[in-house]
Amino acid sequence: MGIVWTSFTGGGGMRVLGIDPGSGATGFGLIERRGGAIKHLRHGVLRPPRGAELAERLDFLHRELLAIVSLEAPEIAVVERVFIAANPRSALVLGQARGAILASLGAAGIRVAELAARQVKKAVTGSGAADKAQMQTMVTRLLSLDKTPATDAADALALALSYAGAGVLADLPIRSRRRNTRRATTQFVLGRTR
Amino acid sequence: MGIVWTSFTGGGGMRVLGIDPGSGATGFGLIERRGGAIKHLRHGVLRPPRGAELAERLDFLHRELLAIVSLEAPEIAVVERVFIAANPRSALVLGQARGAILASLGAAGIRVAELAARQVKKAVTGSGAADKAQMQTMVTRLLSLDKTPATDAADALALALSYAGAGVLADLPIRSRRRNTRRATTQFVLGRTR
Repeated sequence: MGIVWTSFTGGGGMRVLGIDPGSGATGFGLIERRGGAIKHLRHGVLRPPRGAELAERLDFLHRELLAIVSLEAPEIAVVERVFIAANPRSALVLGQARGAILASLGAAGIRVAELAARQVKKAVTGSGAADKAQMQTMVTRLLSLDKTPATDAADALALALSYAGAGVLADLPIRSRRRNTRRATTQFVLGRTR
Repeated sequence: MGIVWTSFTGGGGMRVLGIDPGSGATGFGLIERRGGAIKHLRHGVLRPPRGAELAERLDFLHRELLAIVSLEAPEIAVVERVFIAANPRSALVLGQARGAILASLGAAGIRVAELAARQVKKAVTGSGAADKAQMQTMVTRLLSLDKTPATDAADALALALSYAGAGVLADLPIRSRRRNTRRATTQFVLGRTR
């Protein structure tokens, strides 16, 4: 997958925060890779107050994310690489959300990695063309979550999983909070391509 | 010019901060309207460290602008309204700079107004199609500056002037730091269209 490990240390654990920036909803998902296992820590969606002014909404994203990274201290944040967006208007809107979010990561001194959507989809589901529902299903299974995360949070968790080298294409076992990890894990094998 | 005055009080003075966001250089310009006169306070260009990562650069913009608005306490910040950008890539890059800057204005609780470039050019030079050099010249004259500001700072000052209702199309006298205000002022009349 071409991922370079820089701050990962065998026993200490590495926290990876995936972020899916959006002006209306920004998903985030935090996992920890410890030894050779992956553990889910938390995820959620930041939704700026709908009626608020743009500057206030962007400040909301900046503040909330800064609070999360200050509390959780991830070693790395992973965001989706943006290729040519559909149109300049949506690129501007997305850019503004990304700007507020990246600035808060910069403020916290957290390193940022970018991964292509196709790469993340392939790592997590086995297919570079997976849709949002498939991503939700696979993230839920891979991390043995009790509830399916919202699409934005699932995309964020997928970014983190992909960066951490976990997914259907990886050999990493997922350390679950539940007991039926093995059963859940075997289901991924169906999607394996290597 | 369709400007609504909300926080302007006759004797107290209203500080207007113009901002011209850009990822490489963000211009800012602060003026004060007091009674019926306009006064130049300060201007400059924020240039994030060139070699730094994107998140660090955006955090630089966020921090520096927050420092300026905390110190100078403008009543309003004015940014250029973005119409359809040239292409999605430049829209994304501009959006990111705008996002960091708007988030810092949101953090400081400063109201944000948007003005169209054409409207600003027309207000300041008399022509909606003025080029950057013309804008620099007119801003320098209108505010009786000793030195021509850099283009980004001149654009920012032009935004502030336009919002404050000053320019070649306005009747507002500019309160200069120099003595030859009258002479400088009469030069604008040449460009008047009303």
